[in-house]
Amino acid sequence: MAVNRNIRCVVMYDGTKYQGWQRLKNSDHTIQGKIENVLSKMTDEKIEVIGSGRTDAGVHARWQVCNFHTLCQKSTENIMDYMNKYLPEDIVVCQVEEVDSRFHSRFGAKKKTYVYRIWISEYPPVFERKYVHAVSGELNLRKMKEAALLFIGEHDFQGFCTRKVKKSTVRRIQHIDILREDNELKIVVTGNGFLYNMVRIMVGTLLEIGKGTLTKEAIIEALETKDRSKAGEKAPAKGLVLHDVSYETRVINDFKQDK
Amino acid sequence: MAVNRNIRCVVMYDGTKYQGWQRLKNSDHTIQGKIENVLSKMTDEKIEVIGSGRTDAGVHARWQVCNFHTLCQKSTENIMDYMNKYLPEDIVVCQVEEVDSRFHSRFGAKKKTYVYRIWISEYPPVFERKYVHAVSGELNLRKMKEAALLFIGEHDFQGFCTRKVKKSTVRRIQHIDILREDNELKIVVTGNGFLYNMVRIMVGTLLEIGKGTLTKEAIIEALETKDRSKAGEKAPAKGLVLHDVSYETRVINDFKQDK
Repeated sequence: MAVNRNIRCVVMYDGTKYQGWQRLKNSDHTIQGKIENVLSKMTDEKIEVIGSGRTDAGVHARWQVCNFHTLCQKSTENIMDYMNKYLPEDIVVCQVEEVDSRFHSRFGAKKKTYVYRIWISEYPPVFERKYVHAVSGELNLRKMKEAALLFIGEHDFQGFCTRKVKKSTVRRIQHIDILREDNELKIVVTGNGFLYNMVRIMVGTLLEIGKGTLTKEAIIEALETKDRSKAGEKAPAKGLVLHDVSYETRVINDFKQDK
Repeated sequence: MAVNRNIRCVVMYDGTKYQGWQRLKNSDHTIQGKIENVLSKMTDEKIEVIGSGRTDAGVHARWQVCNFHTLCQKSTENIMDYMNKYLPEDIVVCQVEEVDSRFHSRFGAKKKTYVYRIWISEYPPVFERKYVHAVSGELNLRKMKEAALLFIGEHDFQGFCTRKVKKSTVRRIQHIDILREDNELKIVVTGNGFLYNMVRIMVGTLLEIGKGTLTKEAIIEALETKDRSKAGEKAPAKGLVLHDVSYETRVINDFKQDK
C-alpha cells in the first residue's frame, strides 16, 4: 500500500495579479488555486493545500508555508522542480520537505511576521513600485513609534478587522518595529495571528498618526470600544508582505529524526 | 521674446515592456518616445529629447540623463510633476533642472556605470525576477575576477559589439568589479562609453568563464582579433541597468551660478 506523505512547502509570491491566497470558486487567480492545480496534475490526485493563513488580494509573501497530503512518491527535489516548472513565474517554491503527518500549516503556526513597506516620497523607485506604498509629505516617526507600542500584548482586535467573525478576535502582538532607511519606512509586526485586514488597518492608523490626522488615542479607543470607525483607513495591499511563519520546530523535524 | 531653456532630467525606468530607449518610427514602446510625447503635449512644441545614450530593449535605468530645449516657462517642479503625472508608472522622473544651453546629455557624458545582476540559483526571488538573470550551478568567482581585469583600459571593443559601426570602436573601461552578496552577483562596469550590446557580451563572456566553458584567453583573443565569435554569448537584457552617468559638473552648474 502506498504511503500517505505530508509535504511542506515554502512559497514566495508576488501577489499583484492575484485575488489572494484562498481558492475561489469562480476565479482562476488565487495562489492556493494555482498550487493545487499544479499538484493535482502532478499526482493525479485531488490535492488540497493548507496554507499558514490567507493573504488578501494584492498582498505578497516572502515566506508562506503550506502543506499537502499525497500518495505520490516523487522525491522532494522532483516535487519542487515540477512545481516551479509549471507554476507561473510570480509564484516560486523555495523549499520542499517531507514532514511528520501531524504537521498542519495553519494550526501549527505559532508566530507570523508581516512587513509593510512605505516609500516617503511621491515617486517610489520604479523597481519597487509594486511592493511599496508611496506616501508624500513627512511623517512624524516618533509619534508613530510611540503609538505602535500600544499594539503590543494581547488585545481584542475587532476594531482592526473589516469582517465580522464568530470566533475570538483576541490576538497577541509580540513585536512591532518601525525602521527608517533613507526614504523607506518598514513596519514590522510579529503576532500569534492576524484578523482579516488587521495589519493593513494597523499600518493605516499609524500612518494617519504620523501625518497628524489622528492621535494615538485612536488606537486606545479602537481597542477598547472594538469600533472599527475609531481606527484609521486600511493601507493599500501592495505594501504588505508575509515575511515569515514560525512553528515549533520539534513537530516539523520529528519525521526526519525518526527516519 | 520667450527664452529658449535647456532642461535636464534624470529618469529611472523599468525597461521590461519597452523596445529600448531610442524612439522608433513604428513603435509606441520606447522610453524616448514616451517622454517626447508627454513633453510635446505639455509645451505644445515638438520636443526632441537627447539621452546620454541608448539602452537596449528590456534594459533598465536607475539614472538615465536626458535633456531637451523648450520655450515653455513652467517651473522645473511643475515640469517634473507634469511628466510623472502623464508618463506610465514604469518611467519615473526623479530630477529636473535648468542647465546651461551648452549642456548635451550625450556629448557631455564622461563616464557611465552599468550594473548587471545575476542570481546564482535557478529560482530568483519573485520580487526581483524582472531585474536579475538567474544562473543555475556554481560560478568560479576567482576566474571571473581575474578575467575581468583584462577589460580595464583602452581597447578596441569591436569583438564585443553586435553591430557594424563606422565610427571608432575604441572605448576605455575605467573600472570593473564583481561583487557577491549571498546568492546575488553584481558586475559593475564603468567606462567612457559602450558599444551596442557591449556590456551584455562582456558579462556573458565572464559568465562562461565562471562556468568553465571559456577561459580568459577568449577575452584576449576577442580584443586582439576584434572577432565577435571569440567572445561569449550576450547575457539577457533584464539583468542590466544603467546605474549612473557622470558629467563635468562645471558645465551643468554654470547656469545656476550665473543666475
